[in-house]
Amino acid sequence: MIRWLALLAVPAAILTMPVPAGLTAEAWKLFAVYCAAILGLIIRPAVESIVLLAVVAMGSFILPVGKMLSGFGNSTVWMVFSAFLISQAFADTGLGKRVAHIMIGRFGKSALGLVYSAALTDLLLSPATPSNTARSGGIVYPIFRNVAGALGSEPGATGRKIGSFLTLAMYGISMTTSSLFITACAPNALMVSFAKNILKVDVSWIQWAVALFLPGILMLAVVPYIIYKLYPPEMKAIDNAEAMSKQGLAELGPVSVKEKLLMLFFGLAIVGWSTGSITKIDATTIALAFFSLCTIFKLISWDSVLANKGAWSTLMWYGGIIGIANALAGAKFFTWLADITAKNVQLAGYNAYIVLFVLLVVSLLVRYVFASMGAYVGAFIPVLFALGLVAQAPVLPLVFLISASAAYGCLLTHYGGAVGPVLFGTGYVDQKTWWKVGAILVAVNVVVYMTLGLGYWKVISLW
Amino acid sequence: MIRWLALLAVPAAILTMPVPAGLTAEAWKLFAVYCAAILGLIIRPAVESIVLLAVVAMGSFILPVGKMLSGFGNSTVWMVFSAFLISQAFADTGLGKRVAHIMIGRFGKSALGLVYSAALTDLLLSPATPSNTARSGGIVYPIFRNVAGALGSEPGATGRKIGSFLTLAMYGISMTTSSLFITACAPNALMVSFAKNILKVDVSWIQWAVALFLPGILMLAVVPYIIYKLYPPEMKAIDNAEAMSKQGLAELGPVSVKEKLLMLFFGLAIVGWSTGSITKIDATTIALAFFSLCTIFKLISWDSVLANKGAWSTLMWYGGIIGIANALAGAKFFTWLADITAKNVQLAGYNAYIVLFVLLVVSLLVRYVFASMGAYVGAFIPVLFALGLVAQAPVLPLVFLISASAAYGCLLTHYGGAVGPVLFGTGYVDQKTWWKVGAILVAVNVVVYMTLGLGYWKVISLW
Repeated sequence: MIRWLALLAVPAAILTMPVPAGLTAEAWKLFAVYCAAILGLIIRPAVESIVLLAVVAMGSFILPVGKMLSGFGNSTVWMVFSAFLISQAFADTGLGKRVAHIMIGRFGKSALGLVYSAALTDLLLSPATPSNTARSGGIVYPIFRNVAGALGSEPGATGRKIGSFLTLAMYGISMTTSSLFITACAPNALMVSFAKNILKVDVSWIQWAVALFLPGILMLAVVPYIIYKLYPPEMKAIDNAEAMSKQGLAELGPVSVKEKLLMLFFGLAIVGWSTGSITKIDATTIALAFFSLCTIFKLISWDSVLANKGAWSTLMWYGGIIGIANALAGAKFFTWLADITAKNVQLAGYNAYIVLFVLLVVSLLVRYVFASMGAYVGAFIPVLFALGLVAQAPVLPLVFLISASAAYGCLLTHYGGAVGPVLFGTGYVDQKTWWKVGAILVAVNVVVYMTLGLGYWKVISLW
Repeated sequence: MIRWLALLAVPAAILTMPVPAGLTAEAWKLFAVYCAAILGLIIRPAVESIVLLAVVAMGSFILPVGKMLSGFGNSTVWMVFSAFLISQAFADTGLGKRVAHIMIGRFGKSALGLVYSAALTDLLLSPATPSNTARSGGIVYPIFRNVAGALGSEPGATGRKIGSFLTLAMYGISMTTSSLFITACAPNALMVSFAKNILKVDVSWIQWAVALFLPGILMLAVVPYIIYKLYPPEMKAIDNAEAMSKQGLAELGPVSVKEKLLMLFFGLAIVGWSTGSITKIDATTIALAFFSLCTIFKLISWDSVLANKGAWSTLMWYGGIIGIANALAGAKFFTWLADITAKNVQLAGYNAYIVLFVLLVVSLLVRYVFASMGAYVGAFIPVLFALGLVAQAPVLPLVFLISASAAYGCLLTHYGGAVGPVLFGTGYVDQKTWWKVGAILVAVNVVVYMTLGLGYWKVISLW
């Protein structure tokens, strides 16, 4: 209750101050509401959706209610929401499981092969599953968790046999695939939205995929190996991988019509997303159409859609925060903030690499206080992008550097992304190991993105 | 599948026609999408939400996706959605049950007294329960259904003892209270939205309540009595009403803090809604704040919010249809339609009473084809309002006449409103009786609204 009062007190305190020169009264009110939203995401007096709806309600007493609700009609929010629901089709039809079993049969003869099977499966599913919790935590991981169990490795005494390794590796994999496509992870769409409204740059689906492809795939190859070296499983060879794969596939039976349809729609969606900048068909349109096809052909039932609590929660609080943040950007608040900062602090004029590096490090350090990736992106990225404007950081490198780090930054803690609690909760890995290995992986990522990443983006003329 | 193809073929056919003179290309495209939406609501190839999302997806291929999604940020949609969720607080806290048991104790000594207890309970809850399914079907009816069971009246041989009467009366009551407040029934908010966009008239919460009060309360008094006469229960006196009430209240225990809080918030919300035209606080703001308070003080848990499938379905398809219809209105389609009709058919110049009567009868006749009140309002009201424009019907009387009939028109069939299937599904009442009594009740309503209603509205200067 005290936390709720704080949420009321902070905007009230801001509103009693005079409106700073250069800002409209509306922008100042919006800023007060925005502070309440950010504070709410950090101190979390309740789940994000309740916090955001309460802030929207509060805000609509001092601002037009239509403006407070505008985020719910935002196309970015709907891209995430519909693709979030599509994730379910991969679970419901069994296609996700099938891919994993095929991979285990092909590559599962060693512990390292097994995690690369998981990586490949996660990668294949990632373009259309922005619920990385559903993808990695709900589809891919459970299968490999069962494999560990079948190999006699359970949390506790037998954990280090293979299960602990698989669990930690899955987290590393998930937080690498999550940055590969806009549609691989929900907060990426938030990032695009802020890039458009604050940095004034439109990032298309295909541009994102191209920019993140090279460093992302490299990290996907490297991350499991680093974990293998830092936290090796006792069991290196797996004799009965083929048998397990066969049994799994036998249980699934022949490929169903629904699975075939899902593969078809999935293929069409990827074609649609990757040609969007030519065809001018919005990525949200593709996601909505994909989702509609899934419901029309009953790959997902409406009841299971309604039961998908994660999707509805995401719709609620993304809609809330995007609406407020975009209204604030529209009222030129971030431009004003950047101007004020530039007048008072000398940030411009430094070498672009140094600026980007400092911003990157700052963005990673704050991660320890954020309990979810979405909260971090929603609350911190507008401020970070405003700082980037002041420091005159090259825009597209900034967006992609920060976008990648938003995902791999989750590795620092076990609560950084929603997949974390799912995997950590199994009890296979202790917190100290989790944080230690995470910090090392993040350091490697920083080095790779600051060198190979920035270099590659120069080669493909992003700056 | 054929029905889905029809949904694709109709807009395609419209788009192949040349754009009529006086309309923009965008308006014509919107009209094609709107036709698909209406057709979808009538032939229902799937539940409304799937249909509307599919139409939105289809529409966003030919129109900006932001325009197609705009309804999801519409404040009317959010008023309905938040108040819909509030309904749950009355069920969860037990306050709804308590009111019903108190009423049974006071007035339940006869069969007629019992239905008036139900009517009063439903009336008391109606200002904040736009889910009339939750209110009448979920809170009030189950208690009276149990009373019938306790009195030895079950569907079948013993039905006519009292259960059949209570069931049919509950439907009549629900469809009367539903028109009393904007927030008494979800489609009322749609009506207000169309009135604003097509008839260019703003209807406030208090104006609606005042306009519908007199005829509505009269009908609430009359409807149970008519049913009592047409379809009398065998058991007229109820000896153990007080005992049943006491037992019910004993089971609920003392009034909880949560119930007290709910009463407080409920009181504040009604004050807020009824003074909205003075304080300039939007009705949606009140609903959002009420809902937020319910979640902050845990009168409703977020899990039960997420499990409230009716609310999410309503958000989805109301958001879809309101977005499309408002965009169409914004593109001046309905003005154009009215102009064209006026040029070709002589509708203006008739006596206002005749015009209103004809429109009312038309609006009731079409009810037999609509499977829900929301579908009827969403699909048919824009056209009816456009006809009203052409016929130069007095605006506010038209709005209130049609708003009342939207609710009582449900009585014509057992599928007219969502409460219908709930009550009809008990098996207490046969379809023939249901339709026959319904038709008589509708006729009485028409007479009352055409005489007393229009007269009263003249006295309070609505025309």
